[in-house]
Formats: sequence, C-alpha cells, structure tokens
Amino acid sequence: MELGIIGLGKMGHNLALNAHEKGHKVYGFNRSIEPVDYVKEMGVWATSNLEEMLNQFETRKVIWLMVPAGKIVDVVIEEIKGYLRADDIIIDGGNSNYKDTVRRYNSLKELGINFVDVGTSGGLEGARNGACMMVGGDEEPVRFIEPVLKDICIENGYGYFGASGSGHYAKMIHNGIEYGMMQAIGEGFEILKESPYDYNYEQLAKVWSNGSVIRGWLMELTQKAFSEDSHLERIRGVVGSSGEGLWTVEEAIRLGVPATVITDSLYARYRSHQEDTFSAKVVAGLRNQFGGHYVVKK
Amino acid sequence: MELGIIGLGKMGHNLALNAHEKGHKVYGFNRSIEPVDYVKEMGVWATSNLEEMLNQFETRKVIWLMVPAGKIVDVVIEEIKGYLRADDIIIDGGNSNYKDTVRRYNSLKELGINFVDVGTSGGLEGARNGACMMVGGDEEPVRFIEPVLKDICIENGYGYFGASGSGHYAKMIHNGIEYGMMQAIGEGFEILKESPYDYNYEQLAKVWSNGSVIRGWLMELTQKAFSEDSHLERIRGVVGSSGEGLWTVEEAIRLGVPATVITDSLYARYRSHQEDTFSAKVVAGLRNQFGGHYVVKK
Amino acid sequence: MELGIIGLGKMGHNLALNAHEKGHKVYGFNRSIEPVDYVKEMGVWATSNLEEMLNQFETRKVIWLMVPAGKIVDVVIEEIKGYLRADDIIIDGGNSNYKDTVRRYNSLKELGINFVDVGTSGGLEGARNGACMMVGGDEEPVRFIEPVLKDICIENGYGYFGASGSGHYAKMIHNGIEYGMMQAIGEGFEILKESPYDYNYEQLAKVWSNGSVIRGWLMELTQKAFSEDSHLERIRGVVGSSGEGLWTVEEAIRLGVPATVITDSLYARYRSHQEDTFSAKVVAGLRNQFGGHYVVKK
Amino acid sequence: MELGIIGLGKMGHNLALNAHEKGHKVYGFNRSIEPVDYVKEMGVWATSNLEEMLNQFETRKVIWLMVPAGKIVDVVIEEIKGYLRADDIIIDGGNSNYKDTVRRYNSLKELGINFVDVGTSGGLEGARNGACMMVGGDEEPVRFIEPVLKDICIENGYGYFGASGSGHYAKMIHNGIEYGMMQAIGEGFEILKESPYDYNYEQLAKVWSNGSVIRGWLMELTQKAFSEDSHLERIRGVVGSSGEGLWTVEEAIRLGVPATVITDSLYARYRSHQEDTFSAKVVAGLRNQFGGHYVVKK
Repeated sequence: MELGIIGLGKMGHNLALNAHEKGHKVYGFNRSIEPVDYVKEMGVWATSNLEEMLNQFETRKVIWLMVPAGKIVDVVIEEIKGYLRADDIIIDGGNSNYKDTVRRYNSLKELGINFVDVGTSGGLEGARNGACMMVGGDEEPVRFIEPVLKDICIENGYGYFGASGSGHYAKMIHNGIEYGMMQAIGEGFEILKESPYDYNYEQLAKVWSNGSVIRGWLMELTQKAFSEDSHLERIRGVVGSSGEGLWTVEEAIRLGVPATVITDSLYARYRSHQEDTFSAKVVAGLRNQFGGHYVVKK
Repeated sequence: MELGIIGLGKMGHNLALNAHEKGHKVYGFNRSIEPVDYVKEMGVWATSNLEEMLNQFETRKVIWLMVPAGKIVDVVIEEIKGYLRADDIIIDGGNSNYKDTVRRYNSLKELGINFVDVGTSGGLEGARNGACMMVGGDEEPVRFIEPVLKDICIENGYGYFGASGSGHYAKMIHNGIEYGMMQAIGEGFEILKESPYDYNYEQLAKVWSNGSVIRGWLMELTQKAFSEDSHLERIRGVVGSSGEGLWTVEEAIRLGVPATVITDSLYARYRSHQEDTFSAKVVAGLRNQFGGHYVVKK
Repeated sequence: MELGIIGLGKMGHNLALNAHEKGHKVYGFNRSIEPVDYVKEMGVWATSNLEEMLNQFETRKVIWLMVPAGKIVDVVIEEIKGYLRADDIIIDGGNSNYKDTVRRYNSLKELGINFVDVGTSGGLEGARNGACMMVGGDEEPVRFIEPVLKDICIENGYGYFGASGSGHYAKMIHNGIEYGMMQAIGEGFEILKESPYDYNYEQLAKVWSNGSVIRGWLMELTQKAFSEDSHLERIRGVVGSSGEGLWTVEEAIRLGVPATVITDSLYARYRSHQEDTFSAKVVAGLRNQFGGHYVVKK
Repeated sequence: MELGIIGLGKMGHNLALNAHEKGHKVYGFNRSIEPVDYVKEMGVWATSNLEEMLNQFETRKVIWLMVPAGKIVDVVIEEIKGYLRADDIIIDGGNSNYKDTVRRYNSLKELGINFVDVGTSGGLEGARNGACMMVGGDEEPVRFIEPVLKDICIENGYGYFGASGSGHYAKMIHNGIEYGMMQAIGEGFEILKESPYDYNYEQLAKVWSNGSVIRGWLMELTQKAFSEDSHLERIRGVVGSSGEGLWTVEEAIRLGVPATVITDSLYARYRSHQEDTFSAKVVAGLRNQFGGHYVVKK
C-alpha cells in the first residue's frame, strides 16, 4: 500500500522504517533535512518538499501525520487538504486530544476526506518493531488501511474501536493508566529506599519481571533503568507530562469518575517541578501563627 | 484549687499564668531555671526543685504534666509517683498518643492514682487567655478538677468525653482536621498565585474572615500571616508534623476509614521536606526508557 | 441607590430584603409570582413583568442578576440589554465560571455597558443579615455600587480585587477551600465514629467551636447539624456539587498546582453518588483471576 | 531435597505438586484431610498427622509453612519446634508482616533453628508452574534450600535479598505496587465506561496486552476477566485487602514517604465496603445548614 508519512521524528521515522520493511511504499516527508537523509539511507523514499511527496501517489492517498499534538496538526491539515480528493485518507497518529480529533473529522468530512485517529503505544521500540494501535474513525477507510496497520503492529496489538476519536480516547486512557502504574512503581521503590534493608534494586526489578503479579514491560524497563544507574544517582526526579494525563483527569472530573490514583500521579509530576510550594508556605506560616512553630527562613 | 504544673515551656507557662490569674494556687516546676524565673516575675510560685514543688500541696495533689509527648512523660510519671498517694491526680495535658495514655492510666490505677488526659487546643494565645480542652478519664477525678479546667478554658471550650484516652483521641482527630483545613487553605492560595489575577492575599483573607462560609480562626491567622509578609517571601515551604497527623492516619487505615484528605495533608508535609524524590527519579527513568523522554541530569 | 434584582430565589430574596432594609430602592423581578408576592409582603417593590421593573429606574440602571449560573445568565443578559444604555451596570452575583464572566464583560463592553462580577458567600443567613462579597470588574462602576455592596455585607466582608472575573475566581477558590475543609471535618468525625470511644458529637463540635484552632462557622454548623440529628441517622451521605469545586480542580490541573486535598474532596462527593463502581469491579475481577479471591456475586 | 510443607491450601498444594514434579521429596501435612487426599492422588506423600510428617526426614529438616499470616504462624512454630534440631530450617512462605518475621527469626535463633522468609508472587498459576520468590534470612540456610526454590520458581524469578525480613518486606512492597497498578487499571476502565464511546473492553484489554507500554500480566488478566463477563455485570465492586497494602501504607507514613497512589488504592478498597459514609453525611448536613441544599433523606 502507498503511505505518506508527514513528520520523521522519533516516532515517525521508526514507523516509516517499519512499514517499509513490511513491503509498503512509504513516502516520507520532513521539513528539516536530517531525518529525510536518515530514512533515505535506510532505503525509504523521503523528501523535504511536501508537494513532491504528495505527487508520488498513484492511487488513493493515505497520509499519516506524525507531528506533535496541538495547533501544528491543524496547520498541516490546512496545508495538505488542497492536494487531496474525496475518499483520500488522513491518519492522525499523534497524541491528539480526542475533542480536536472529532472537530477535524467533522471539518474534513465536509470535503469528503476521511480522517482516522490512531493512538500509538509501545514507545520507540514498538514503533520500529511492532507497535500497539488503537484506531477510531469511519469503518470504510479504517478497513482500507487495516493491512498496513496490522503489518506495523505486533500480533494482536491492533484494534479498531469505532467512532471518530475513540482511538485517541483509548490512547489517552492508556496513558492515564500508565501514569498510575509508574507512580505506584516509583512509590514502592521509594519506600524500599527508606526501609531498614539494603536492596539491590536491579535484582529486585528483575525478579518482579519474572513470574510476579506485577510483571510487565514497565517492570522490565525499571530493571533496565537500574542496570544503567543502580541508584538513579545521575538523574533528577523531575517528570514532565505531555497532555494525556491532564486530559484523562479532565475527563474524570467532567464525567464524575473519582480517579484518585491517576490524578495523584499527575499531581506528583507537577510537584516534581516545584522547588518550593506556596501551599506549604501558607501552612508553615499558619503553624507559626498559632503554635509558635519554627519556620524555616529563607 | 492547688495545681502543680510540670513543664513551664511555651504552653506550660501560659497555662500557669492563666490558672494563677483565675485565683488558683499554682506550683510551677521546670528543670531549667529561665522559665521558673519568668513565671515567678509574674507572681506565680515556681521552682526547679521537683520535691520542693510536690511538698507544697496541703490537700489532694493535682499534677499537670505539660511536657513533650513520648518517653519523657513516662520518665516524669516514674519520678513523681513515689510522692503521690492513692486518690491523687495526674493530668497529662500534652499531645500524647491515646494508646500510651490508656497504658499509663492502667498502670497508675494499680496504685490508686488517677490519670486524666487533657487534649488542649487554641495555641499559645488560647493557653494564656482561654483554651479549648477535651478531657478523658474516670469521672470522679475529672469532676474534682473541673473547676480549674473550666476557669482556664474559654466559655463552652471545655468538654469531658468519657473513658481514659478519649481526650487525647479527640485532640488527635482535631489535629487531623486541622491538617486538612490548613492544606485546603494553602492549596487555594497556591491556585490564586498561579491565576491570571493579581490578588492582595491579605485583603482576600480578611474578606474571607468576615461573613464567608470558610471564616474561622485559621483564616484570621492566614490574614495575619500575610499582613506580616504579603507574599510569604521570607519563609520556606517546609512543614513539620508533631505526630498527631501521623496517628490520625494510622487510626484511619487501621479502622478502615478512607481519610483521603487528612492523609494527603500529611503527605504534602512529608513531601515539603524532600528536595528530590526517589519515586520521581524512577518515573523519570522509566519515561526515558520507553519514550526517549528527556531526563534532567544532575 | 436604585437596584434592580433579577431572580428572587433563596439567595435573591434575602439580598433584596437586606438591601431594602438598608434604605436602598430595590426593584425585584421574578418570572414566577410566589417570590414576588413574598418580598412584596415584606415591603419590597417587585414584579413578574421584566419591562415594568426596568422602567422603574430614574437614574443610572444597576441590575443585579441572581440567577443560576450557566446559560440562563446569557439569556437574561440578552433579554435586558436592549433596555440598558451605555454606563449602566449589570452585576452577576451568581456562581458563574470566571471564563464566562470575562466573555460577558468583553461582549457588554462593546455596548458600553458595565459588567461587574460579585462572588457571594455566607449562605442564606449571610445574604439576609450581612454577606461576604468578592468583587471584580472595572473600577468606576465598582466604586459607584460600592455603597450598596458595603451596606449588605458584614463589616470587612466586602473586597474589590481587580480585573473582570477576579470576584468569581475568588469565590471559586473559596468554594474549593470549603470543599476541603468540609471533607476534613467529615473524615475526622468518621474516624471518631469507628473509634473505641463513644463520643457525643454535638458536644465535641461545640467544644471545637470555642477556643480551638479549628473553630469557625463550619464547626458551628457541624454542632448545629448534630444538635438536630445526633448521629445524622435521618440523612444519607450523598453530596452534590454545584460546579465551583470542579472548576477549582480544572484550574489546578491547568495551572500545574498539585491540589490533592481539594481534588480528593471533589472525588469523595462524586463517589458518594455511586452505589457500585466499575473500577472496583475491575479490581475485584483481577484479584479473582490471579489469586482465586472471593468475589461478591450480584 | 527433602521438604516438608505445612498447609496444603490454595497456595500450599500447588507448591507441593510443583516441587514434587521437580523431583524433590515432598512431605505434605494438612490438619483437614481433603487436601491431603488430593495431593496424595497426585503422587505426593501427605498426612494429617504432624508428627508422622516430621518423622519422615532422613536428613536436615526443611519445613515450609504455607499457612495464613498472623497468630497461626506462631502456633505452628510452637508446635513443631520441639521436633527440630539446631541447623534445621523453617521457611515462612506466607504473607507475614516483616516485623513478625524478624521477631520469629530472633526467637528461633536462640534455639539454633534457621528461619527463612519467602515472599511468593504469581498467584495460584505461578505456585503450580513457576513462581516468583523474594527471600530473606541468613545466607547459609538460604543457599542450602536454593536448589528447591530455584526449581519451583520461573527462570530469573528467584532472588535472595539479605537480612531476615527482607523477603517479606519486598513482597509487601510488591503488593503495594500491585494495589496501585490495579486501581489505575480500574479507574481507566471506569472513565471509558462513562465516555461517549462504546468500547469492547475485552478487545481493548487484549490490544493493551500486546505491544503497549502498560502490557503485563495484570492487563492479560483484565482481558481474561472481560472475556468471562464482558461488562463485569455478575460481580459487585467490593474489594478485600489482606494486610499487605495496609502495612505498605503504615511503612510509608512511618518512614515519611508520600505514597499517595498506593494509599488511595487502599482507601478505594475500604470505600468499596461502605454503602454510606459518615463523612459524607457530615458534609451533606453542613451543606444543608449553610446553603439550604437538598439533603437525601433516608
């Protein structure tokens, strides 16, 4: 199948190589030239000229967007939609908010252009060797692109879930669960660190990766992280968040679901960016007022 | 009434002055001399000789302990119990764990000595001018000391709640609620600080202290704290905890009560002491493993 | 001062009576007739004919909206703005979302009409006898209406905080704090209920209302609630939420503030509406899968 | 190796069969006869006469306790220690609290008897076909029993972590992490259930089990649970807890680790047992007091 990929960054170039390897005709595009050169060396057709890429197609166009979520998705859609005909297919493979997805779907539908949302999991390794994909959108275009999706996914890692947005929604929830799981693992190891015992964290993560109830890819990665830095002394505990966790919590509070664990995981990340908090200053100030408790002066 | 007070620290000397002012015969004791001199200047009998203090009593001995919770309470009880006779009364006015209180009560009961637990709230100002007291213990000794307790409490601020330990237990819960209330206030002001508006915090705390649903002493103290340091720039957000919050959470998990707010308030205090957390290091390390996410290096 | 009040419900009619008593010319309006009759009996001019009310004004119109937050505020503004001239003032005294407030402010500004946001606290009793008000909007109209605002507020309970929306924003945060405080109180009493002691809750709330660190209006109301129903046996633990708590949490997650206590208070309310939760079903199902743990069948 | 197993319940009989299959001489004991008959049918020596079992040993005795954590472990140790000689080995393979383990270790050390703690994970399936084991205790006895432990564990699923108690401590933390992971999964599916989409939960859990970041045994079990009951309509969301989660939280609050996610997971389980909560009654009562908010009557 012919497949245009816009955005050859960390995820995009791995997907391009993956699809190429499976025998699909991949046309890569990236505005900056380095990623273009990189995938070309690997034998994938690529260019930094968008029009040239779009003109490669001999049949129905299938354009996979692998660009950062947000305004840039709208910009790219605006840029390419003049080159597309009714029945062509745009795939958004990024971590877009499902509300934006539904808006884009409706807007493109007026032009007869199909818009399919694909939530992708599995990290860089998955993108390269076998990803996990949650797909939403109209059935006809999804069935049309299914062969390539199944090819780049690991076995049983592909699923079509229905109406537009359901793929990105599932990915959002996936990340919410991921936040909670990672925070649980982090807290467990922090208690171990403060415990009366002197654990070999790498060894413990290895044991937990084999046969335990909590075994899984995250525990294997925990083992790998400790194997590279046995006490994580070389990194600081500052954790970013890309939007999916925030959206999951927004959904929870909007829908009335008491998602305490996912929310606290998000808050722990926020807190990791703060050196000092105004809330704690207020509490410290209050304790000082009523009890004469010692206040740490600046 | 004759009243011996052991421990003339922040809380003890204020209670001594308060009881003295109400016409009670106060015999103060403190091992170090400065607090002794201080209350003597204010007209209160005091000494740094324990035996001398205990010999002052002409009638039934009533000994109020105002010493730090923990082992020191046992030490003092051991030290004085030889001077006491059956029917005498020891009052523990500190923030003791109620389980220790029940243990001490049972142990002193074998000697016929009464042990009354008094949880005290209201801070230093309350100790001096009218405190709030939650009392537990046998009814006879409690009724005997009630006149002095009512004198040093603010009107309606005195309550007798029953069996030994119920006073300290009520104080423990009081502090748990206090933790939650203070954290709620702190979080509210932190959101205000990040908001698009430029609030005058002192003015807002003042308005909230008058007529609002959340008015109360803590909001008045919030106003006072901001009046002294409009943006709390001179203090750091490091918040200690004396044990009562921890015990409240221990009770909650033991009794099966999902006390999320009180627990999170305790955890926020713990977190305020950490510059970096091992849990966040683990999460940061994991994100780096699967997504190539940037890690802040040390 | 002439003051039109639209909406004579629980809050509105109390404010109308309050302003009337302070000597202001109040023109009340309510679509349904009962509240109109009620305030008329109390000597306040009122009607269920909107145009008639708006025609009463001899000077600059000041229209106070006391209607439920949401779409209805827009509907009412649309309905009255034809009757208003440049310089007239609309006050939104309801619990509107501050984003809506800023939108309405900007839209009315184009017509030269002033829009002032007033967050009101103190409950029904406050509305009647002395409220707490947080005010945002342009300075000129705020200063113009300040005399009546100060009259209906309790002393020091009035505050002007700046740009449009700052009044409703402050009220939102006030409610967030209120959620946290109430939940802390609730959790404290739940632990007491499970404790080994048999507390008289009314008496304890009374003692805590006098001289304690946690004294304040909420504790006084706690006492009142227990005085009417000593073990709250006549009500169910189902707690609604009007939007302000949800918005506070939305702000927190948007601004990166780890507001764990306020959020958990909101979640506790959500949870109180659920008889069974899907999350717990999943966890129960999982435990059954790996450990053969007993599952409660329906 | 000769291995006596005391307790042939769910976990014990699976371990017995597992060790037997690997060629070890297993002597099973259970007070009630049914489990004895069951393993005998499978070719394992077993009895309901304790003395008879203990007399089977020709060499150094190795006694594996697989009985419920708590007092019963002490009872069994008391019962068997008269039959043991210095150098013999008792293994506690249950979910004992590590503090009890250290106490038992010290007490048996006085008799020269070795006490090894083994935390076991992997559920019933793991016990039968390859478990995950975390081991603590003195090195000599651990090395002695290592062959049989490695035989009944899955590859790389065995780990020795040092001083007495470190095995049970690691298992405790494992379960704390498990609580958090399961709650995160549960919350994710609850949001999905309330979402605008109509997901096939089994299919989604299957996709997430293949290639996603959150893949692992718990997600596979989630798929299995949904495959048996597509909407979990046949079970109620009531989740028990066996002690390990509670102990993890006790450790966290004692050690000053803000383990919000693990704690909230425990609280969600507690909450699942409550039909109504006193805390919510208090909050509902308060809202009624100040705002006239509707209260759901019983």
